[in-house]
Amino acid sequence: MKTREEYIESLRALHLNVYFMGQKIDNPVDHPMIRPSLNSLAMTYELAQQEEYKDLMTATSNITGKTINRFCHIHQSAEDLVKKVKMQRLLGQKTASCFQRCVGMDAFNAIWSTTYEMDEACGTNYHQRFRDYVQYCQDNDLVVDGAMTDPKGDRSLSPSQQEDPDLYVHINEIRPDGIVVTGAKAHQTGSVNSHEHLIMPTCSMREEDADYAVSFAIPSDAEGVTIIYGRQSCDTRKMEKGADIDLGNSTFGGHETLFIMDHVFVPMERVFMCREYQFSNMLVERFAGYHRQSYGGCKVGVGDVLIGAAALAADYNGVPRASHIKDKLIEMVHLNETLYACGIACSAEGKKTKSGNYLIDMLLANVCKQNVTRYPYEITRLAEDIAGGLMVTMPSQADLQHEEVGPLVRKYLAGAKGTDTVNRMRILRLIENLTLGTAAVGYRTESLHGAGSPQAQRIMISRQCNMEAKKELARKIAHLDTSLDKPQGK
Amino acid sequence: MKTREEYIESLRALHLNVYFMGQKIDNPVDHPMIRPSLNSLAMTYELAQQEEYKDLMTATSNITGKTINRFCHIHQSAEDLVKKVKMQRLLGQKTASCFQRCVGMDAFNAIWSTTYEMDEACGTNYHQRFRDYVQYCQDNDLVVDGAMTDPKGDRSLSPSQQEDPDLYVHINEIRPDGIVVTGAKAHQTGSVNSHEHLIMPTCSMREEDADYAVSFAIPSDAEGVTIIYGRQSCDTRKMEKGADIDLGNSTFGGHETLFIMDHVFVPMERVFMCREYQFSNMLVERFAGYHRQSYGGCKVGVGDVLIGAAALAADYNGVPRASHIKDKLIEMVHLNETLYACGIACSAEGKKTKSGNYLIDMLLANVCKQNVTRYPYEITRLAEDIAGGLMVTMPSQADLQHEEVGPLVRKYLAGAKGTDTVNRMRILRLIENLTLGTAAVGYRTESLHGAGSPQAQRIMISRQCNMEAKKELARKIAHLDTSLDKPQGK
Amino acid sequence: MKTREEYIESLRALHLNVYFMGQKIDNPVDHPMIRPSLNSLAMTYELAQQEEYKDLMTATSNITGKTINRFCHIHQSAEDLVKKVKMQRLLGQKTASCFQRCVGMDAFNAIWSTTYEMDEACGTNYHQRFRDYVQYCQDNDLVVDGAMTDPKGDRSLSPSQQEDPDLYVHINEIRPDGIVVTGAKAHQTGSVNSHEHLIMPTCSMREEDADYAVSFAIPSDAEGVTIIYGRQSCDTRKMEKGADIDLGNSTFGGHETLFIMDHVFVPMERVFMCREYQFSNMLVERFAGYHRQSYGGCKVGVGDVLIGAAALAADYNGVPRASHIKDKLIEMVHLNETLYACGIACSAEGKKTKSGNYLIDMLLANVCKQNVTRYPYEITRLAEDIAGGLMVTMPSQADLQHEEVGPLVRKYLAGAKGTDTVNRMRILRLIENLTLGTAAVGYRTESLHGAGSPQAQRIMISRQCNMEAKKELARKIAHLDTSLDKPQGK
Amino acid sequence: MKTREEYIESLRALHLNVYFMGQKIDNPVDHPMIRPSLNSLAMTYELAQQEEYKDLMTATSNITGKTINRFCHIHQSAEDLVKKVKMQRLLGQKTASCFQRCVGMDAFNAIWSTTYEMDEACGTNYHQRFRDYVQYCQDNDLVVDGAMTDPKGDRSLSPSQQEDPDLYVHINEIRPDGIVVTGAKAHQTGSVNSHEHLIMPTCSMREEDADYAVSFAIPSDAEGVTIIYGRQSCDTRKMEKGADIDLGNSTFGGHETLFIMDHVFVPMERVFMCREYQFSNMLVERFAGYHRQSYGGCKVGVGDVLIGAAALAADYNGVPRASHIKDKLIEMVHLNETLYACGIACSAEGKKTKSGNYLIDMLLANVCKQNVTRYPYEITRLAEDIAGGLMVTMPSQADLQHEEVGPLVRKYLAGAKGTDTVNRMRILRLIENLTLGTAAVGYRTESLHGAGSPQAQRIMISRQCNMEAKKELARKIAHLDTSLDKPQGK
Repeated sequence: MKTREEYIESLRALHLNVYFMGQKIDNPVDHPMIRPSLNSLAMTYELAQQEEYKDLMTATSNITGKTINRFCHIHQSAEDLVKKVKMQRLLGQKTASCFQRCVGMDAFNAIWSTTYEMDEACGTNYHQRFRDYVQYCQDNDLVVDGAMTDPKGDRSLSPSQQEDPDLYVHINEIRPDGIVVTGAKAHQTGSVNSHEHLIMPTCSMREEDADYAVSFAIPSDAEGVTIIYGRQSCDTRKMEKGADIDLGNSTFGGHETLFIMDHVFVPMERVFMCREYQFSNMLVERFAGYHRQSYGGCKVGVGDVLIGAAALAADYNGVPRASHIKDKLIEMVHLNETLYACGIACSAEGKKTKSGNYLIDMLLANVCKQNVTRYPYEITRLAEDIAGGLMVTMPSQADLQHEEVGPLVRKYLAGAKGTDTVNRMRILRLIENLTLGTAAVGYRTESLHGAGSPQAQRIMISRQCNMEAKKELARKIAHLDTSLDKPQGK
Repeated sequence: MKTREEYIESLRALHLNVYFMGQKIDNPVDHPMIRPSLNSLAMTYELAQQEEYKDLMTATSNITGKTINRFCHIHQSAEDLVKKVKMQRLLGQKTASCFQRCVGMDAFNAIWSTTYEMDEACGTNYHQRFRDYVQYCQDNDLVVDGAMTDPKGDRSLSPSQQEDPDLYVHINEIRPDGIVVTGAKAHQTGSVNSHEHLIMPTCSMREEDADYAVSFAIPSDAEGVTIIYGRQSCDTRKMEKGADIDLGNSTFGGHETLFIMDHVFVPMERVFMCREYQFSNMLVERFAGYHRQSYGGCKVGVGDVLIGAAALAADYNGVPRASHIKDKLIEMVHLNETLYACGIACSAEGKKTKSGNYLIDMLLANVCKQNVTRYPYEITRLAEDIAGGLMVTMPSQADLQHEEVGPLVRKYLAGAKGTDTVNRMRILRLIENLTLGTAAVGYRTESLHGAGSPQAQRIMISRQCNMEAKKELARKIAHLDTSLDKPQGK
Repeated sequence: MKTREEYIESLRALHLNVYFMGQKIDNPVDHPMIRPSLNSLAMTYELAQQEEYKDLMTATSNITGKTINRFCHIHQSAEDLVKKVKMQRLLGQKTASCFQRCVGMDAFNAIWSTTYEMDEACGTNYHQRFRDYVQYCQDNDLVVDGAMTDPKGDRSLSPSQQEDPDLYVHINEIRPDGIVVTGAKAHQTGSVNSHEHLIMPTCSMREEDADYAVSFAIPSDAEGVTIIYGRQSCDTRKMEKGADIDLGNSTFGGHETLFIMDHVFVPMERVFMCREYQFSNMLVERFAGYHRQSYGGCKVGVGDVLIGAAALAADYNGVPRASHIKDKLIEMVHLNETLYACGIACSAEGKKTKSGNYLIDMLLANVCKQNVTRYPYEITRLAEDIAGGLMVTMPSQADLQHEEVGPLVRKYLAGAKGTDTVNRMRILRLIENLTLGTAAVGYRTESLHGAGSPQAQRIMISRQCNMEAKKELARKIAHLDTSLDKPQGK
Repeated sequence: MKTREEYIESLRALHLNVYFMGQKIDNPVDHPMIRPSLNSLAMTYELAQQEEYKDLMTATSNITGKTINRFCHIHQSAEDLVKKVKMQRLLGQKTASCFQRCVGMDAFNAIWSTTYEMDEACGTNYHQRFRDYVQYCQDNDLVVDGAMTDPKGDRSLSPSQQEDPDLYVHINEIRPDGIVVTGAKAHQTGSVNSHEHLIMPTCSMREEDADYAVSFAIPSDAEGVTIIYGRQSCDTRKMEKGADIDLGNSTFGGHETLFIMDHVFVPMERVFMCREYQFSNMLVERFAGYHRQSYGGCKVGVGDVLIGAAALAADYNGVPRASHIKDKLIEMVHLNETLYACGIACSAEGKKTKSGNYLIDMLLANVCKQNVTRYPYEITRLAEDIAGGLMVTMPSQADLQHEEVGPLVRKYLAGAKGTDTVNRMRILRLIENLTLGTAAVGYRTESLHGAGSPQAQRIMISRQCNMEAKKELARKIAHLDTSLDKPQGK
C-alpha cells in the first residue's frame, strides 16, 4: 500500500489535461483550488497506515491474499459490507467532505459480479480480464474513478435517439486490439485525483442502444481526454491570499468534473462490456445499490462533524443549556443515526452473488439513499438555526486582521464569557462551509443526486418491495374470497 | 414446545380474576372480546411447529441445549438478535396485531444480564435464581408478561414522594421465605393470555425509593391479583351477533390490562431484585432497549399488512395505476422499511454482555423506536388517503345482510369492474381496524408509547450519542485553538 | 329564525326512511345513536339566538332584507366570507364535532353564481328558480344537505361508462312538470338531521354524460328515498347503558349516510341544472372551493378543543411544565393557526362573481384544504403523545362504577396531586374520541377526504397557480434569451 | 417621490465609512460587490413611478396628505396591511432577492404606536418628535434602516451583565441637546444603501438595563459610525471579470453589515426612547410582529421566481411532463402559497392601535414567520431536486467562452431538443444562486433568523394563544366537574 506521500507523487506523474475557469491547470497537485480535495483523498492512504484504523481501512485481497486498502477490495462477506460503511463514516468524520474514492470501490464490486454473470450467459471472458485489472489496482493501490453518469442531453430521449450521438458514451469502432470510444461523464467526483477512470453505462439499454452498452478502464491522462473542473459555491475563497478562517474547512474539500473522451482508444484487456446491452441494467442497479449504501456511511460522518460544530456554536453563543437547543441537537443525531442504521442494515443483510462477492440488500440500500435525499437537508436547517444569522453576515478574515477595523470585529463578535472570538468565527465558517459553501455541494446536492436522484430510488423501492406478497397478507387477514373477483386490476 | 391447543388448554387451567365493563369474566379463553387476542398469541405456538418457520421461531437453549420457542430464548449472538426482529415481522404479518409475547422475551434478556452484574457488584445470587426461572419457562413453553409500567400518579413526584405509596409497586414486607408486594402495572399487554407476570421496576431509583426497586415473577392467578381489562376503540364490535365484516380483522387482536397486586406473596426463588436501587436504571434501560428493538420488527409486519390492504383498496377502487396512488404506496413502503432497517441495524450491531447474552446497540435501538413513534402515523394517514372516505361512512354488515336494504348496499358500494363488493368492504374495514379501530391501539398508540414515550428515547439518544467526540471532530476540522478558550460552557 | 326546540320539532315532522345496523329507525330524533349529531346541528340554531354571537351567526338576506341564520346566507362581501370562517371555528369549539350545516351553505353559494352564468350562456332561467328556493330555505330556516359525492363505482370509468348507470345520479325521465332521477350520494353528512337535500353533480362531465349533469332539491323524506346510516368507530358506545364517561363527548357528534334515490320525482321549480354538462365543472369547483374554505374554520375549532384537552391532560398527569410538553402544545397551536390563516386569507381575498355574491380565492382555498389533509393528523399525534397510553388501556366507566373494582380503578388512575381522577378519565376519553373514536371520523378522515381528497386539491393548485407567469419572472432575472429556444417543451 | 436616479445620486452624497475584506470602500454606489443590492433597493423607487403598480407601491400620507412611497407609510387600515404584503411579494418577484427597505417601514409603524402609548404612560413627548421624523423621511423619500439586533455577546447574560458594556447599544451620556451612544447593530440589511439608521432596543429590559432602552435616528454617515460589510456565499463572483452567467442573478442582490457606533451624538429631536425600559418589550414585539408579517410577502415573491426557475429547468432538461416533477412543482406552490396565506391573514385581521395606525394580528404574524423558517428550506430542496446535479458541477462561464473547451461545454451541456444551452446554464445558476449562493443568504438564512429566530416565534405563539380559553372549551365538552380539582397544576 502507498503512503500519503507516494500517492501524491504518483499523481504528479500523470499528465492530465485539466481546465478550470478558462485556464489550463498545469500542476493540479499543488493548485490551491484542487489541493483540499486531494487532501481528502490522501486521507484514505493515511489512515490505512495507522494501527488503530487497520481493521476498517484494510482487507485481505481474495485475489492475492495480500493486505490491501479496503477501497480496492472485493467484499467477501456481509461483515465486509458493514466495515465498508464504518470506514466511510470514519473518513467523513476526518475530512468533513467527500473523499472521492468510493465510486471506484463500488464500481469494482458491481462489475465483478456482473461480468461473471455476463460470461455465464454470453460465453464472454470479461470476468477474468476484470479480475486482472482489479489485481493491478490493488497491487498499485490506485485511485479509480468509477464513472457512470452521462450528460444525457434531452432526457425524454434514449441514447440512440439523441441528436448528438456523443451525449452518451459510445463505441466508435471495434478493432482487434481494442475499441475507440467517444462521449463524456458528468459529475465526476475526484476525477483529477484519480489514476484511472472506470467507465460504466448510465442506464438500462435496449438493442438499438447496443453501442452505448460499454464498460472499460483508461488512465486519467489517456490521449483524447479533456477534464473540465466544475465550479462550486464559494470555490474561489480557496484562492484568496492567506485563505484560512473564511474557508471554514481550510484543509479538506471535494471536486467534480466534466470528463470528456474524444476518440479514446481502449486496449481489449481493459474492456469489460462491449454491446451486451442486456446486462447494462444489472450493472447500473448494482453499482447504484452499492453507492446508495455508501451514503449511509460517508454522509453520516460529515453529519457528525456538522452536529459537533452546531453544538460548539451553541457553546460559543452561550446557550448550550437552552432546552430547544438541546432538542435540536438530539433531532440532528436522531436523523443522522437513522441514515447510519439504513447503511448498516443493507450491509448486514448482504448476500453472496454467483461470483462470490457480497451484494447489499437492494431494497434497504435504496431506502437508505432515499433518506439521504432528505435528512441532511433537515440537519443542515437545524445547524443553521443553532448557529444564528452571524454565520452569513460576519466580516471577512481580512477585516478581522485589519489594523483599524480588526479590533472592532473582535470586540463585537465576542461570544460566551471566556471563549475566544476567532474560534467562534471559525466554527461559524465551518457551518457555512457545510450548509452553503463548497462542502454543501457534497453534503446537500450530492446527497440528493449522487448515486441517483430521489425518483430513481423510488422506482427501485417499487420494484423490490414485493407488493403482491403484501396484498396476500391483507387478503388472508380480511378473509377475502378472491374467487368472487374476476379480472381484478393490477 | 406446546402446540396451539396445549397452550389454550394450559390457559384454561388458570383461575384468573378478570373484570371487563363491570363484569367478572369467568372464562376468558372463550370470551368473544378476548379470544382474538388469544389467537394472536397462539400464533407464536402455531408457527413454531411449522417447518418453514423453524429457523426464525425456535432456538437452542443455552441452558438446556433443547430446542425452544425463540420467545423464551436468551440471545446468544447478534444473529439471534436479527432473527428475533425477523420473527416479530413475520408474526405482525400473520396477525396484523400485537401478539403480546415480546415483553416476556425482552424481560428475560434484560434481567439475565442485569442480575449477573448485580451479583458481581452486590454479592447477591439473583442470576442463578433467574436462570432457574428461565429454564422453567422454557421447559414449559410459557407466556410471560414482562411488566414494567407503574401507574405513576403525579408524574412530577418520585415513587416515595407519592401520596399513595401503592402508585408504584413496592415491597410491603421481607420475610425469610419471600416478600409481600403491593401496587399495579398499567398497560399490561396480553396479561390475560399469560401464564406468568414478571415484574420489573419502572424507572431509575434513588436510595429513598429502595422499596420500589423490586423485580420478581408470579403466576397470573396468584392470590391478591386483580386484572381489569381495558377498553379499546370499537371493542364491542367483537361482541355483536355474527361479528365478521365490521371487525376488519375478525380473527386476531390485542389487549391491555391494569394488573393490580394487593399484598401478593412472592417466594424467594422468584425474587430477582430486592432493594438494589442502583441497578433499577440498568434494568429499565436494557428492557426498554430490547423492547425498542422489537418495534422495528412487529410494527413493520403490521405495516406490511396495512400497505397490502391499501394496495388492494386501490385495486377495488379501480385506481391502481394513478401515479399519485403508486407514489403513496412507495412512500409507505419506504417508511416501513426504514423502521425495519433500524430494527436490523441495532441487532446486527449487538454486543455481548458480561453475562454472555447479547445486547442491542442502545443508540440505534432508541433511534429505531423514535422513528416508530412517527412513521406508523404517516403510513396510517396515507392508507386512509388511498382507502377513501367510504371506510368511515360505510353501512354495517347487518345492513348488507338486510333483506331490503342489503341489495342497495351491494349495488351502490360496487367498485372496479369484476371485483366483489363484499371483498371491497372487507378491505376497507381492515384499514379502519388498523387506523381507527381496535388494532389502531396497537399500531398507533402503542407505537407511540409502548417501550417508552418519545421523550424517553430522546433522552437516551442524548446520553448515548457522545456529543463531546463530535465536538472534537469539528474542532479539528475548523482548526480551533482551544487553549484560548477558558471556562467554556458545556 | 327557528329556536333549537322548533328545529327539533320540525325534524319530527319528517317521515324519513332510515336504516342503521339492519334496523329501520322509526324515531331518529330521539335515537341515542343519532341524537348527539342532532345536538351539534341544533347548536347552529341556539347560538344564533344569543346576543354575543349574533354578528357571526346571523346575516341580512340579500333577497328579503330579513335577519337570517348565516348558514342560509348568500355572501355579499369578503367580510361575509371571513365571518363565515369565524362562525365555523366557533361552532367547532362548541361541539368538538362536525355540525353538518356547512354543506348546504356552500351549495347555496356555488349554485347561486353558477346558475347565473349558466342562464347567461344557455338562456335558461335556473337562477330565479334557485333564488326562490333559497328564499324558501331562509324564510323557514331550514337545514339543507348539499349533496355532491356519487358512489362512483369503477373510478377509472366516467359516469356513462359504468356498468350500472345508477352509480352516478342521473335523469331517468324529463317530464313537463319535473324530472325523475335515480342514484345515490355517499358520505352524506348530517343527512338525517336535514329538512332538504340539494343535489349537485360530482365531477366535470362531457357530452356523453349529459344525463348526469343534474342539480335539484328534494325534501329528505321524498318518496323513493332510502337513507342508510353509516357506522363509525366506537359508535355503539352511545347505546351502552348510562353512556357518559366512555363517550368522551357525550353531548355532540356527527354522522354520515348513504342517501339513495330510486325514481324520485322532482318538480321543475326545484331543478337547477338539467343536462348542461358544460357547467358541471364550474359548479363542482365552486362548491369544492367554498367547502375547502370551510375546513379552515370548523376543523380549527375542533382543533382548539383537542389542544385544550391535551393541555388539561398534561395538567392531570402532573407534567405541564415539562419543556417538551410545552413545545408540543405550541406546535399544535402553530399548525392549527396555520389552517386558520389559510381559511381567513382565501376569504379576505374573495372576489365578487357576476351574480353578485362573493367567491373565495380559489388557489388559497385549495391550499387551505391541502393543509387540512395533513395538520389535523399531526395535531392528533401530538395529542396522543401528551395524553399517554392510558387513553387506550383505561378501564370502562362500568368498572369505575363497580362496587369491588371501582375503588381500585379510582386508586390507581389517580393523577397530579389534588386533581380528580374521574375528571382525568373524562379528558383522556375526550382525546380518544377525537383521535380514534367517533369524532376522529370528522377530525381525521373528513379532513382528508371531505370537500375532495388531497389529489383533487393538488390538481386545482396546479391549474390555478399560473406557472407560466412564474417562469417569466425567472426568465427576466436570469436574462434568458428565449429567441434562442425553438420548440421548447411545455 | 424620488426617481431611481435621484435615489442613487442622493446616496452618492453620503460619506459612508465602509469596509469590506480589509479595504475601505470609497465609492460604495459603484462597487461591483454592492451595486446589485443597490439595484434591488432602487426597484422600490422604480416601481413606484409605474402606473400599473401605483396602487400597491404608493399611499397617501396621514401626516401630509401627499402621495408617498408605501415604504414610508404609516398603515391606516387593514387594507393597507394587505397591500404592504402584496407590494413585498411584487418586489420579491422583480428582484429575487432582499430589497432591504422593509425594516424601515416596520420600524416606523412600531415606533409610531409605541411612542404614543409611552407618552400616555410616562408624560413624554416622543410621539410628536417621531411624527416629525417620519414626515421628514416621507418628504425626502428616504431609505431608513430599522436596526434592532445587538451583537449580544454571551447570550446567557442580560445587557447590563455583559463584561463589555458595548455589546448592547447604550447611552453614554445624556446632554441637554442630545445623547451620546455606543454599541453596534449586527445583520444590518441594506445598511450601505440607506440614508438613515433608526435604532431600536433588541429585547425587553429591566430597570438595571435602562441605559440600553434607547431608540433614535442618525444619518448613516454620522460621525463615529463604522460599517463593516459582511461576506456572503459566492460574494466575490460579482467581482470576477465579465461576471454574468456564473452569478445566476447578475442584476440584483442583498447585503448585510455590522453597523458600529462609537460615541455617536444624537440630537434630542431624533431620540424616541431614552431609558423607558418598560416599553422596550412593546417596541420589540411590535417591530418583530410587523417584520414577521413582511416575510409572508417578500419570501413568497422570491419563492415565485425559484418555482419558475425550477419549472424552466425541467423544461430545459426535457422532463416537464414527468408526474413526479409536476408533483414537486405543485408542492412548492402549495408551500409558498401557505406562507402568503399567513401573510394575508395576519394583515386582514389587523386592528387599530391607540395611536391610530394598524397593527397586524400578533398570533398569526408569528405563525407566519414560523412557517417561513421551514418552507423555504423545503422549497429549496425541491428546486435542487428538479434542477439536477449539474447545478453544482457545471463548468464556469470562462470555460464556456474559452476557445478550445468552450465548444465542448456547449456540446455536452445541451438539454432538451431545440433549447439553448446557455439559457439552460443560466437557469441552473439562478437556482444555485437562490439555494447555495448569495441569494440563499436572503432566502434561507434570513428566512430562518430574520425578524427573530424560530424559538422567538414559538415563545410569542405560546403567549398569544390563550391556552386557558382552549382548556375551558375542553372542560365543557368533557363535562368536567372542576370543583373536585383542588390546587390543579398550571
